[in-house]
Amino acid sequence: MKSLNKQPIGVFDSGIGGLTVVKALKKVLPYEDIVYFGDTARLPYGSKSSPTIIRFALQDAKFLVNRQVKMIIVACHSVSSVALPDLKKHFRLPIIGVIEPGAKAAVQASKNNCIGIIGTQATILAGAYERAIKNLNRQVEIVARSTPLFVPLAEQGWTTGPIALQIAKTYLTPMIGEKIDTLLLGCTHYPLLKNTIAKVFKQKVRIVDAALETALETKIILQAKKLLNPQKLAGTMKFYLSDLTPNFSSIGRQFLGADLTEVFRASISE
Amino acid sequence: MKSLNKQPIGVFDSGIGGLTVVKALKKVLPYEDIVYFGDTARLPYGSKSSPTIIRFALQDAKFLVNRQVKMIIVACHSVSSVALPDLKKHFRLPIIGVIEPGAKAAVQASKNNCIGIIGTQATILAGAYERAIKNLNRQVEIVARSTPLFVPLAEQGWTTGPIALQIAKTYLTPMIGEKIDTLLLGCTHYPLLKNTIAKVFKQKVRIVDAALETALETKIILQAKKLLNPQKLAGTMKFYLSDLTPNFSSIGRQFLGADLTEVFRASISE
Repeated sequence: MKSLNKQPIGVFDSGIGGLTVVKALKKVLPYEDIVYFGDTARLPYGSKSSPTIIRFALQDAKFLVNRQVKMIIVACHSVSSVALPDLKKHFRLPIIGVIEPGAKAAVQASKNNCIGIIGTQATILAGAYERAIKNLNRQVEIVARSTPLFVPLAEQGWTTGPIALQIAKTYLTPMIGEKIDTLLLGCTHYPLLKNTIAKVFKQKVRIVDAALETALETKIILQAKKLLNPQKLAGTMKFYLSDLTPNFSSIGRQFLGADLTEVFRASISE
Repeated sequence: MKSLNKQPIGVFDSGIGGLTVVKALKKVLPYEDIVYFGDTARLPYGSKSSPTIIRFALQDAKFLVNRQVKMIIVACHSVSSVALPDLKKHFRLPIIGVIEPGAKAAVQASKNNCIGIIGTQATILAGAYERAIKNLNRQVEIVARSTPLFVPLAEQGWTTGPIALQIAKTYLTPMIGEKIDTLLLGCTHYPLLKNTIAKVFKQKVRIVDAALETALETKIILQAKKLLNPQKLAGTMKFYLSDLTPNFSSIGRQFLGADLTEVFRASISE
C-alpha cells in the first residue's frame, strides 16, 4: 500500500460543476493525484432538501474514502453549506468545503464591508456564507440572492451573448443599488459566467471565485499535515460519475479546460 | 378491499412537471381518484442515460403498484421514450405514456405532413416520437430539436417576457424555415411556455400538447376495460414526492392550477 502522502486528493460534487475546483487544484498542486466523484445520476442537489443533501453527501464521501484518498474537498456549494458538520462527524480525514475559503477571500477583498452573494436556492436559504462571513467580521453587510438559471445556462454553453446578459441583468440589477463592492460566486458553475456578470456591474465590484481559494486552502492543509505528495511528477486524474450522461464529456471539457480521459461509471448504494 | 374500478389512477414523473397531465385528467375524468408520484429527489431524468432512466422508472411504477392503482400513466417524456417496453414487461396493469397520444394528435393536426418536435435531450436523442409518428404515417417529415432551458425557465416562473421570448427564438427560429405546420410539445413543462412559443411562430403552426391527448386516451382505455369509477363524486388527489423541495408547492400550484393539499414524502428503495 502507498504511504499516505502519495494517496490522491478526493473531490466530489453533485455533478460536473466541481471540475472548476479540479482545474484550480491542477494549477496550485500540479503533483497531486486527484479522484473525482460526480453524482450525475442524482444532480442537481441545489433544489433538494437538507436531509436529502446530507444523506447523499455521506454516500459520496464514503465512495472516496473507499478509494483511499488522503483528504476530501467538497466541491459543491449546496453540500458545503448544509452537510459539512455531518461529514466531519462521520469521517476522520481532513474535509474542507468551498464556503470558508470563499468567505475569507470575500472579506479580504471588500473595502466597504458590503458583500453580495449569489448561489443556488439551497445555498442561499441555508445561509452558510452569511454565517461564515459574519464569523470573520460582524460588521459586514450581506446582500444574498439565488440565481438558479445560471446553472442550466452554463451547461447549455450560453455563457456570453444577449440571453446570458439579460438573465444576469434580471437577477443582478437589483444588487447594483445595494452598494456592494465585492460579489462572491457561490456556485461552482458560475465562474463560467464571470465575464457576463462583470458586464452587469461594469467593473464596479470585485468578483471572488471560491474555486481558486479552495485550492490554496487545500495546499495549506496538506503542508501543515505533511501530506503533500513528495513525488515531482504530474499528478493523475480519475473521474467517477454515477451516470454517464450524454453531455458529460463536452460539459466536462468546458469546466475542466481539458479532456476528461479516465472516466468510469460508479454505482452509489443507498 | 375496494373493487378494482374504484381504485385510483397512478401517475408518475421525474418531478412535478407531470402535474400538467393531472390537470388534464381532472378535466376529462373528474370522478377518478389520482395518486401521483414525483421523483423530486432524483430529477431531472432528461439528462440521464437510458439504463438509469429505466431503473428509476421501474422503481417509480412499483411504488404506485404498491398503492393499488388500476392503471399507470407515465407523465414523463424521458421515461415514456426509453422505458415503456420495460415497464410493460414488468407489470400487468394498463400502462400508457405521453408519446403515443401526442404523436397521434400531431399526425391528425398536420396538413402538410411536416411536424416539429421539441423536448429534453433524452427525449430527442431517444427518437421515440419520430418512431411513433412514422408508425402512424411514413410520409411525415420530422424536424426535432432539444430545448433544455425551457424546463428551468418554467420552474423559475419566467414563462413570458423578454428572456423567455429570446430563449424561445434562439431555439425555434431555425425551425421556421423548415415549413412545419404543427409543433409537438414533447415535455410536460412546455405547456406553460405555449404562448411564448406561439409568438415565435406567429400563429403559423398548430401547437399540440400531449397532456390533454393522454388524458383522453386514458378515458378510452378505462372505458374499454370497464374500469371507470362508477361513483359520481369528485375524485381525490394524493401526491407523493421523494423529496419535499423548497419550491414544490409554489411550482406545483403553477403546474396543477390548484393547491397541492395532500402531500407526502416517499422513500424510494434502490
